[in-house]
Amino acid sequence: MNIQELVRDIPDFPKPGIIFKDITPLLANSEALVHCADRLAGLCPTDIKIDKVIGIEARGFILGGMIAQRLGAGFIPVRKKGKLPSKVNSKSYGLEYGEDILEIHMDAIKAGEHILIHDDVLATGGTAQAVCELVEELGGTVVQCNFIMELDFLNGREKLKTTVASLLSY
Amino acid sequence: MNIQELVRDIPDFPKPGIIFKDITPLLANSEALVHCADRLAGLCPTDIKIDKVIGIEARGFILGGMIAQRLGAGFIPVRKKGKLPSKVNSKSYGLEYGEDILEIHMDAIKAGEHILIHDDVLATGGTAQAVCELVEELGGTVVQCNFIMELDFLNGREKLKTTVASLLSY
Repeated sequence: MNIQELVRDIPDFPKPGIIFKDITPLLANSEALVHCADRLAGLCPTDIKIDKVIGIEARGFILGGMIAQRLGAGFIPVRKKGKLPSKVNSKSYGLEYGEDILEIHMDAIKAGEHILIHDDVLATGGTAQAVCELVEELGGTVVQCNFIMELDFLNGREKLKTTVASLLSY
Repeated sequence: MNIQELVRDIPDFPKPGIIFKDITPLLANSEALVHCADRLAGLCPTDIKIDKVIGIEARGFILGGMIAQRLGAGFIPVRKKGKLPSKVNSKSYGLEYGEDILEIHMDAIKAGEHILIHDDVLATGGTAQAVCELVEELGGTVVQCNFIMELDFLNGREKLKTTVASLLSY
């Protein structure tokens, strides 16, 4: 299935000069939606049982649940500051268009658990790197970070110490 | 499966006096995650083909994709103002703790399509009502709104003109 033709370019979003890769047509296609979840789950290492899949707010939530089901894992949301109701571990990070704070519930991961991190796009890698640190601080091990697409020219993959998988590269 | 015991009360969130129903332990349980998606998909009317499932940002995204897969439907995100990159239809709405603006891509729904709306919680119904209006303005028909949980005492169900389904009531 050619999912690339379901990603469209939106010029000047979120600011002038940026060409945004919009995955909403891909998500709206029922076959492509399932195809992406199947392929991302299929790219996970098979020799390690994944205990939890982290989806990064907000677009990482959409396939995060679907991937978790395929791996027989639970789903953990990593959210922007102030959104999670219980005690959190926080991390500030630089992202492609500014800076932000991500949080995970302190009790979301037990020491020794194997974690898959999912987001829609790997850009500079700052977001995923912050989530890796959040996981490691709770005693979890990040087995892989996976993404629907990767913006190669931003070299995000080099920032991450774990294995990285993605379905599309630009 | 008793999913109610996986929902925990967080007092004084997001502000003093509110007891927040936290579903993150439910999502983190692999069996409960699948159970919720199965049951919510199973509560959809079976005599109408659902074309698209809308997930409302952000927690509605998690099960939204899983429900869409079960129904053979595409997934459409409804997002907070400024997050969707292409042309949008916007709606301001009152919610339990304030006011906000929701947006949907103008081309996300074709006239005549049958739409299921999913969110994690039905509170006052203001959010879901706004999404119903966004769908109808694009020519779609809302077949059902479904939720993991419903806060009965806020009477949100009365505000919605469509059928409503939920797994838990408080």
